Amino acid sequence: MSYPIDDLKPGMSAEFAKTVSEHDITLFGEVSGDTNPVHFDDAFASTTPFKGRIAHGVLTASYISTVLGMQMPGPGTIFLGLNIRFKAPVRIGDTVTATCTVRDVTAEKRRVVFDCVCKVGDTVVIEGEATVMPPPKA
Amino acid sequence: MSYPIDDLKPGMSAEFAKTVSEHDITLFGEVSGDTNPVHFDDAFASTTPFKGRIAHGVLTASYISTVLGMQMPGPGTIFLGLNIRFKAPVRIGDTVTATCTVRDVTAEKRRVVFDCVCKVGDTVVIEGEATVMPPPKA
Repeated sequence: MSYPIDDLKPGMSAEFAKTVSEHDITLFGEVSGDTNPVHFDDAFASTTPFKGRIAHGVLTASYISTVLGMQMPGPGTIFLGLNIRFKAPVRIGDTVTATCTVRDVTAEKRRVVFDCVCKVGDTVVIEGEATVMPPPKA
Repeated sequence: MSYPIDDLKPGMSAEFAKTVSEHDITLFGEVSGDTNPVHFDDAFASTTPFKGRIAHGVLTASYISTVLGMQMPGPGTIFLGLNIRFKAPVRIGDTVTATCTVRDVTAEKRRVVFDCVCKVGDTVVIEGEATVMPPPKA
């Protein structure tokens, strides 16, 4: 199931939710090479403004890619750009909901811009936009 | 080892290189929930413009975070924003080099903007910028 460009209209949206586990942070450190102690060392992390360990920001951002690549527009989508701001920390055990909403559709260039937001409860942790090329009509 | 804001000057740069393995893509799919067949299914991926499986774009983007969080400014850095464009695909076995170069230092806001580029050989796969708050002086 995917949405070619003609099926995408401003205001349509999709979402994905995931609870961040200790194991996710361990694996993300392994794949990214980012073993910054703010993610792994309680003693160090307690000295930062967050007062404790936080998830990798790019891990949370990956949920945006999951919405776009898995749901809307779905498989075959080509990711062109991502412009995000990190607004608040995500901690182990937090459930993040990523929501992507169609803002602009440019049919002649086959480009779609999505407004993207990731929240933990009512707190916005990431906001921004993603630009993609939806898959062709099947 | 980290760089507080007074130690960062335009033109300073740091880099991180990683070869993308099949295992990295499997793990990234697990942590992100993004099991888009363009990353996992050879038959599907061969029908896309890339003519084969590609790495998750956000996996490659994570190497930017690795440079900033591990090297410069280093541990304690707070990631504020990321604005990137995906220019070319990354495939299993490709070695990606992420390079971040200080562009602007705004001492009164404790903000630093880095120009960021990820390359495979001479091919730019991601380019853009990241905004961070460096750690305080130790």
